[in-house]
Amino acid sequence: MHMMDTQLTLTSFLNRAERHFSHKTIISRTSETNIQTFTYGEYAKRTRKLADALSKLGMTRGTKVATFCWNHHRHLEAYFAVPCAGAVLHMVNIRLFPEHIIYVVNHAQDEIVLVDDSLLPLVEAVAPHFTSVKAYVICGDDVDVSKTTLPNAYSYEELLAKASDAFEFPQDLDENAAAGMCYTSATTGMPKGVVYTHRSIVLHSMAMWNADGVGVSERDTVLPVVPMFHANAWGLPFACVGSGTTQVLPGPMFTPQLILDLFEKYKVTISAGVPTIWLGVLQEQQQNPRHLDSVRCLICGGSASPLGLIRAFEQMGIEYYTGYGMTETSPLVSLSVYTSEMADYSFDEKMEVRVTQGLTMPLVETRIVNENGDVPWDGQTMGEIIVRGPWIAAEYYQDERSAEAFKDGWLYTGDIAVYTPDGYIRITDRTKDLIKSGGEWISSIELENALMTHDKVFEAAVIAVPHEKWIERPLACVVVKPEYKDTVTKEELLASLAENFPKQWVPDDVVFLDEIPKTSVGKFLKAKLREEMKEYITQ
Amino acid sequence: MHMMDTQLTLTSFLNRAERHFSHKTIISRTSETNIQTFTYGEYAKRTRKLADALSKLGMTRGTKVATFCWNHHRHLEAYFAVPCAGAVLHMVNIRLFPEHIIYVVNHAQDEIVLVDDSLLPLVEAVAPHFTSVKAYVICGDDVDVSKTTLPNAYSYEELLAKASDAFEFPQDLDENAAAGMCYTSATTGMPKGVVYTHRSIVLHSMAMWNADGVGVSERDTVLPVVPMFHANAWGLPFACVGSGTTQVLPGPMFTPQLILDLFEKYKVTISAGVPTIWLGVLQEQQQNPRHLDSVRCLICGGSASPLGLIRAFEQMGIEYYTGYGMTETSPLVSLSVYTSEMADYSFDEKMEVRVTQGLTMPLVETRIVNENGDVPWDGQTMGEIIVRGPWIAAEYYQDERSAEAFKDGWLYTGDIAVYTPDGYIRITDRTKDLIKSGGEWISSIELENALMTHDKVFEAAVIAVPHEKWIERPLACVVVKPEYKDTVTKEELLASLAENFPKQWVPDDVVFLDEIPKTSVGKFLKAKLREEMKEYITQ
Repeated sequence: MHMMDTQLTLTSFLNRAERHFSHKTIISRTSETNIQTFTYGEYAKRTRKLADALSKLGMTRGTKVATFCWNHHRHLEAYFAVPCAGAVLHMVNIRLFPEHIIYVVNHAQDEIVLVDDSLLPLVEAVAPHFTSVKAYVICGDDVDVSKTTLPNAYSYEELLAKASDAFEFPQDLDENAAAGMCYTSATTGMPKGVVYTHRSIVLHSMAMWNADGVGVSERDTVLPVVPMFHANAWGLPFACVGSGTTQVLPGPMFTPQLILDLFEKYKVTISAGVPTIWLGVLQEQQQNPRHLDSVRCLICGGSASPLGLIRAFEQMGIEYYTGYGMTETSPLVSLSVYTSEMADYSFDEKMEVRVTQGLTMPLVETRIVNENGDVPWDGQTMGEIIVRGPWIAAEYYQDERSAEAFKDGWLYTGDIAVYTPDGYIRITDRTKDLIKSGGEWISSIELENALMTHDKVFEAAVIAVPHEKWIERPLACVVVKPEYKDTVTKEELLASLAENFPKQWVPDDVVFLDEIPKTSVGKFLKAKLREEMKEYITQ
Repeated sequence: MHMMDTQLTLTSFLNRAERHFSHKTIISRTSETNIQTFTYGEYAKRTRKLADALSKLGMTRGTKVATFCWNHHRHLEAYFAVPCAGAVLHMVNIRLFPEHIIYVVNHAQDEIVLVDDSLLPLVEAVAPHFTSVKAYVICGDDVDVSKTTLPNAYSYEELLAKASDAFEFPQDLDENAAAGMCYTSATTGMPKGVVYTHRSIVLHSMAMWNADGVGVSERDTVLPVVPMFHANAWGLPFACVGSGTTQVLPGPMFTPQLILDLFEKYKVTISAGVPTIWLGVLQEQQQNPRHLDSVRCLICGGSASPLGLIRAFEQMGIEYYTGYGMTETSPLVSLSVYTSEMADYSFDEKMEVRVTQGLTMPLVETRIVNENGDVPWDGQTMGEIIVRGPWIAAEYYQDERSAEAFKDGWLYTGDIAVYTPDGYIRITDRTKDLIKSGGEWISSIELENALMTHDKVFEAAVIAVPHEKWIERPLACVVVKPEYKDTVTKEELLASLAENFPKQWVPDDVVFLDEIPKTSVGKFLKAKLREEMKEYITQ
């Protein structure tokens, strides 16, 4: 052995936070009326107490502990108490359909469930179908366990009050041991499980600290709007504990107003969320401006951000990073950072970079492949993104569908993209959403982005509908901004597209809707839209 | 297997540099009259050619390849060609004594030696004693192999001209495989070998990219003054290739003038070297100012930096990071960065931070221990620094002396330090240099730093001399600035110390010298000084 065999574990993050940043704070909004502040010193003690309490409830190496929790300090305590004890934290996506929730809890064989008091109705409704759960721990500021129908229910705070902060985490954890798991919300079929390891989370955190990426640092104050049950809140809570970074956890039922208030009050520097969040925040900021001088960047992923949204934030001096990733990739694969030569770009040129999914991070490799092999970096030739690296899943947890996505050491993402001439990824579609019309690939996302830059359009989804001659043709489904309702014509929207796209790309028709159906994580649910429109016949 | 078993190897760095940064440059000063520029695209091709050429000379998995080279592009090619091929790069410290050079080459069992043409006399003198070397490759712009006495000598450029850039690096390297090795210049006995692995170098590079540290990024231009044979030039060449960072390699026989010219001409942003370098650079800059707007930070280690030196650079707007590390630690252990609460410090308070060895980096752990266990964070209680982490050596290469330094999973560094109340390391001495006077520990380094802030003092070393009553007493050895020669008195220097230190700490006497003897890497050679002064009797 040449170098020390030090295992990359989350325990080293927790120890460092307590040793060097015990005075730094975690601000936790635990309910609509309560915001609490904890120091990292208090946090580390509470985390050890939680590990002690869960151990007394039977948690041991490998035990699966599920959470049904918003973003708050108790969830963050579980983020470390469970894996540092050698057990596995299963962050359940509370927005899954009930039958999917039942599936994932039983499939993971969760034995202990942590649940927010505000989410009790949701869990009480499905709990009778859980087959492996032995205890429920209710998270809240003022929990009355006698009021739940859940069996073997405990109050989180009462457990902690009786627990010892002298609990010692094991010193012999293997870095390849399971630390956490999330299930992806598949559009068809049951969700698929991804298991993160200590090693993958530590390396992903180091990527989040990278000065060539977000560069999360001790000097930052991070507010993850993205839920902690959605791909580890993009790894931010882990990275922040490791670097002693101040965290602002926005809790349940947040609004654009609340997010902006928290930004201003706590001088937030970094936030992260899906485009829908930032659309709402931008609207609110334009109506009721806050002082946002502290905010240095927003991280956005999950689906494409409209150019106008990016421009608006960048014009305020806030960097808007578009990222690419998914539950299977921890999630950070690439980020729309500038390279040195882009420093001299004009504002408009820079925005063309920001709207891409960006440059592949170190240690991760991407390729874009189609039936002819690797695509050229021409900004035009589409293919599927494939990924590999030390924080990319190797398989779905005990799932036969693994073979569909994991081939020859690569994850086939199902996302269709091009490489720009600079080697930046620009997503053009999901494999399933690509419109194949008369032998040509038409990107639904590029059409959507163009429609969403139209002044009068709030949201737009473009889907394939069957066509006798062309097999498939694009159909635009558009939600108009309230103030322009009934004043927009199909013709003007199609004419605006005709200016920028080849003739075959322009949809044959526009359907006006009140709302685009979305998945539990805010992505367009095109499968549902296609189902609704399948009888639709374009001219 | 939950996550992909992607090995952390240097090959991923080289591949990324070629794929994404093929247009970025490496500026290489290959002789006193020649500066060449290569793109990373050209660099990657030449690196594969070098691997092909060395393979034809017999390099295979595990072969040790020695370098006697300054900082230039050919050395950087060897930095990747050798380890990516599965062999081991032994960077020989050319400043070692001849018998030590013979020892390290034979001890490592080096089979191929790369040597700069300017260093041929040095190697020719010792080569007859090498027992394992089968071939010599001479690095230079215009090499005539007929002129060397070395057997089996080849021209680097001629080998490359005949080699193939289609050479393929193995895909199956284990991250724990040896990648490089350095020997430490021990003050007594033969040098001790440290073997770096692919994993340790990759993780160390990620630490160099950390926004809470140096934050080396693609947007930087890095000039390592620290030699590439000295603790991997502090890991900078590896980190830079991984991030596609522009590198300026200053070659042989550099001067403060040259360094400043390169800073200005190539808009260098980061440089690294020992205090002696920066003292010379500062003097030159004060006499002949260059435009240094591009320079954002200097990294300094190896020995303590005088406060005045740090202040002078910081007043120019250049951050001066003092780091702590050694060959055994890859080397980055800690760095004098500011935490968020130091943002509001006054300039003087900030300088008090910069002069320390700083905050321990993530994934590495430090402790300071003495006979009472861990020292309190009081800025006063001294103990020995012990270190562990994934880029800390586990042993010396095939060396019985390992047992003295590696105990219970920790490296005992032999450095004496205190923790400031903020948990920053401040080195006060080497174990061997500590002065134990009448039961009290006196820090030679603190006295030296105080002496070196004196306007008239150029350099100062404080050593222990035997004393009948107190066992040991401090003696100050001082080099006066030329302009003050013969105008400084012992009394005025001792009086200045008496203002700031307890009575027992003030040396009994001052000896004026023309020069402080130094080790091959520029550190005070106190063993020699003590030897010279051992008969010295203080009053």
